[in-house]
Amino acid sequence: MSWESVAATKRQALKDSIPAEWVIPAAIFPPEDQLDVTTFPRESGFFTERELEITSISALTILSNLSSGAWTSEEVTKAFCKTAAVAQQLTNCLSEIFFEKAIAQAKELDAYFQETGKTKGPFHGLPISIKDNFNYVGYDTTIGFTSLVGKPATYNSTIIELLLETGAVLYCKTNVPTAMMISESVNNLFGRTVNPKNRGLTTGGSSGGEAALIAFGGSRIGVGSDIGGSLRMPAACTGIFTIRASAGRFPNTRSRACLEGQESVVGVSGPMAPTLEEIVYWSRTILDLEPWTRDPKCLPIPWRSVELKKSLKIGVLWNDGFVSPTPPVARALKETVDKLKAAGHEIVDWPCTEHMEMLIMLGRLFLADGGKSVGDLLEPTGEPFRPEMKPYEDAKEISVYDLWQIHAKRNAVCKSYLDRWNEAGLDAVLCPTTPYSSAENGKFAYAGYTCVFNLLDYTAASFPCGVTTDKDIDASYSDHKALSDMDAKIQKDYSAESVHGMPVSLQLVGLRLQEEKILAMTDVILKAVAQ
Amino acid sequence: MSWESVAATKRQALKDSIPAEWVIPAAIFPPEDQLDVTTFPRESGFFTERELEITSISALTILSNLSSGAWTSEEVTKAFCKTAAVAQQLTNCLSEIFFEKAIAQAKELDAYFQETGKTKGPFHGLPISIKDNFNYVGYDTTIGFTSLVGKPATYNSTIIELLLETGAVLYCKTNVPTAMMISESVNNLFGRTVNPKNRGLTTGGSSGGEAALIAFGGSRIGVGSDIGGSLRMPAACTGIFTIRASAGRFPNTRSRACLEGQESVVGVSGPMAPTLEEIVYWSRTILDLEPWTRDPKCLPIPWRSVELKKSLKIGVLWNDGFVSPTPPVARALKETVDKLKAAGHEIVDWPCTEHMEMLIMLGRLFLADGGKSVGDLLEPTGEPFRPEMKPYEDAKEISVYDLWQIHAKRNAVCKSYLDRWNEAGLDAVLCPTTPYSSAENGKFAYAGYTCVFNLLDYTAASFPCGVTTDKDIDASYSDHKALSDMDAKIQKDYSAESVHGMPVSLQLVGLRLQEEKILAMTDVILKAVAQ
Repeated sequence: MSWESVAATKRQALKDSIPAEWVIPAAIFPPEDQLDVTTFPRESGFFTERELEITSISALTILSNLSSGAWTSEEVTKAFCKTAAVAQQLTNCLSEIFFEKAIAQAKELDAYFQETGKTKGPFHGLPISIKDNFNYVGYDTTIGFTSLVGKPATYNSTIIELLLETGAVLYCKTNVPTAMMISESVNNLFGRTVNPKNRGLTTGGSSGGEAALIAFGGSRIGVGSDIGGSLRMPAACTGIFTIRASAGRFPNTRSRACLEGQESVVGVSGPMAPTLEEIVYWSRTILDLEPWTRDPKCLPIPWRSVELKKSLKIGVLWNDGFVSPTPPVARALKETVDKLKAAGHEIVDWPCTEHMEMLIMLGRLFLADGGKSVGDLLEPTGEPFRPEMKPYEDAKEISVYDLWQIHAKRNAVCKSYLDRWNEAGLDAVLCPTTPYSSAENGKFAYAGYTCVFNLLDYTAASFPCGVTTDKDIDASYSDHKALSDMDAKIQKDYSAESVHGMPVSLQLVGLRLQEEKILAMTDVILKAVAQ
Repeated sequence: MSWESVAATKRQALKDSIPAEWVIPAAIFPPEDQLDVTTFPRESGFFTERELEITSISALTILSNLSSGAWTSEEVTKAFCKTAAVAQQLTNCLSEIFFEKAIAQAKELDAYFQETGKTKGPFHGLPISIKDNFNYVGYDTTIGFTSLVGKPATYNSTIIELLLETGAVLYCKTNVPTAMMISESVNNLFGRTVNPKNRGLTTGGSSGGEAALIAFGGSRIGVGSDIGGSLRMPAACTGIFTIRASAGRFPNTRSRACLEGQESVVGVSGPMAPTLEEIVYWSRTILDLEPWTRDPKCLPIPWRSVELKKSLKIGVLWNDGFVSPTPPVARALKETVDKLKAAGHEIVDWPCTEHMEMLIMLGRLFLADGGKSVGDLLEPTGEPFRPEMKPYEDAKEISVYDLWQIHAKRNAVCKSYLDRWNEAGLDAVLCPTTPYSSAENGKFAYAGYTCVFNLLDYTAASFPCGVTTDKDIDASYSDHKALSDMDAKIQKDYSAESVHGMPVSLQLVGLRLQEEKILAMTDVILKAVAQ
């Protein structure tokens, strides 16, 4: 079978897996040129009030309603399945659908609760969506490759095991870009996931299907992953929350990586959600499950409570020396800093000293196998490299010796970054998550603000800072001089008109393994910007 | 300059750095065929009673005498410098000598104490010896290569920084094998370090200079490193204690690695000492200094107290499926197990399921650069590969892609080992540290019992189990069938006569990052075998 027919068959099967009653009737189907579809659930009349209530409140409230017996998991699960089905039809955000199985699982949980009066665990009855790369027995883990269709997983990823054991209901997997190595979510198998807040814009990548689903209301907590910004960029594009934990904090064993065995930059799993409290809940719950007892890469560091200083010292990275944030992001950073100052926090400039060097290293590290790992997954079906994957197509393999030299340089950079941080006495660094609020589909060109922190293995949250893009205020750069050709391209591609009305996110970065501190500081910042 | 003349000059300089009054007079110089030289300090009359007292008691007592003001660091330092000078003359265990600087440092510490009534920190005034690979400003870090002579370090390794800041006195660096990748301590620059308990036997490697110095009495606490058994093998050969911590527990940044940037198996630093309490003291003290604040590879895991079950469940790895322990080690393991059973611990057999696969991986990983890193350090002076380094000379570089495939397989093995361990409900695995008590110089051929735990990144202590080799009891194998050609060779090379009277050590292994638990369990085992 050609890759085209594999893809067509798979897409059809995905489409067919949506129950007829959840297929949007033609009469109310939003026109293709309707950009913002997040209004659909509330305005279409396709959902009941109860369904809207369920999908619009915090996972913590849902869990509390489930554990009190006020709600059943069946009802909650059906509401999320239906919303996810609609999200799929409007944004193409899913890769695998198993609503029937989810509802059966929910019924079992309800029965268990009825019989025992107890919940099965801290996620009892809550539907949780998962990114395509996590293995869930019986379903494909294609990460966007046609060659991986029809090869259902025979074991669960460790995180999936934990979720199932503690009562989570799994109902769908979400779309990713080919190999999860593009900053938008597009592949030859499922096509492109678009941003539900503006379908002309990208949902980001690689956890972009997850971000679209959550931003649409089809999930409260999703699990994604991040090796260069794959949690943070889509979270930023859609205005939701996430945390990129340091390697070894959250389990990521037995999930599919495209560059399997590549360990120079370590991919991590992590939560995505509409609120910070849901991110905190997921993080604490996963750590309480002691993932290190079953994931050999996990560190035995339990959840630690943190006591923050009243006044935080925050370094601001205004730009990374290579690409400037687009006008709304620059403005959002400035406004956030002003509010933080007003709230009594100490703000200092944070120079981009090592950033350029890190970016060059990252490029070499991801391409170190000469693109063979990607090629191996394209070859069986004759699937072509997508244009976004050109660097992988063109890459030349480097020697192990050269790889080791890059490691040595990276280690020196990690040391100098840490020394610099300590010398400045910082609690955190605040910077753009990406240069974009979001970008027109196909124009998201830069992951440099996120990936450097993967190289450093630092903790980084992305959060909507309360600023919304405005075509009048953010129309153009005031005498901006491009820092590089890439910068010039990004500024040229920027259109205040296109991104009008989008939320802007920022990134808060802490040292390695400071997840609790970063989450607590993000809360402090949210309170400051809400003033 | 040829490598031979570089080596000759360096050796002469090392010899000349021993003060005349500490050069052993010819009249009392032990004959070359005197095997056990550990008797020399006490029997030669070359040392004062006070010197003997100082070097024969625990570092904890020394520190307590220093912090009470009963002893001066100057006196303590001189006693250790003198003993180290003698150890060097009898075992060739040192690579750098800086006694003068040490004594000056000791005097400064004494003055500080006199003035302030306070110690400078938890190592105040204690001489600590360091393995050659640690950088100490002003001194060479040759790791046995002539090409690295005359290139004094311009910065301190992180562990050296910590030791100096907390009052330790540094007085010498200790010899290693070429590249630290041989299981004995021999190189073209300094030659061979021999075992002070029997100079016909090896002191092991790569922290063999350290082990010889400590076993002789020239140091109470030394800092070594371990990437495949380099702390544990020499500790076992000389009957001292050590712990190979998991990566990220003790700082190892800015020390010299030979395979720099090789991170598939991570080298770690660690303590060596004559008693377990000194190992515990060093470990806890280093963690109390929060090394993660300055070493980017260190994990923010403070010292944790552990509560052990009364009855431990211990898996016994009788052999690794490839090489059997030599008769005294097999006997020591059996006798230890009997005593543990008698003490009420639960003992089960631990199969060697993944060990062979791990050994094959390890071989490929260390040679992945085709020996280029080693070659680079030999080339400048035309120094030849030593015969022990033949695998590096013959190695073919593998591709980055193939390296990644090995990583993926290793990760699967780590998962299956962990699952198996959990299923068995083990607290620890007990096994040989090496097949040998020690071996004749040049005949230590196998590191397979230690290196597998580097691949798994498990915690492993080596401790003398109280059994001494006996040429009558351990004369031969009772109907031993060789497990492999390597096994046959090792058994053939084994001579009960040669190793007669040597202490036998065993290895106690815990899961990743269980340092405190392993130290506590080692104590339990010592008490059980003392019954």
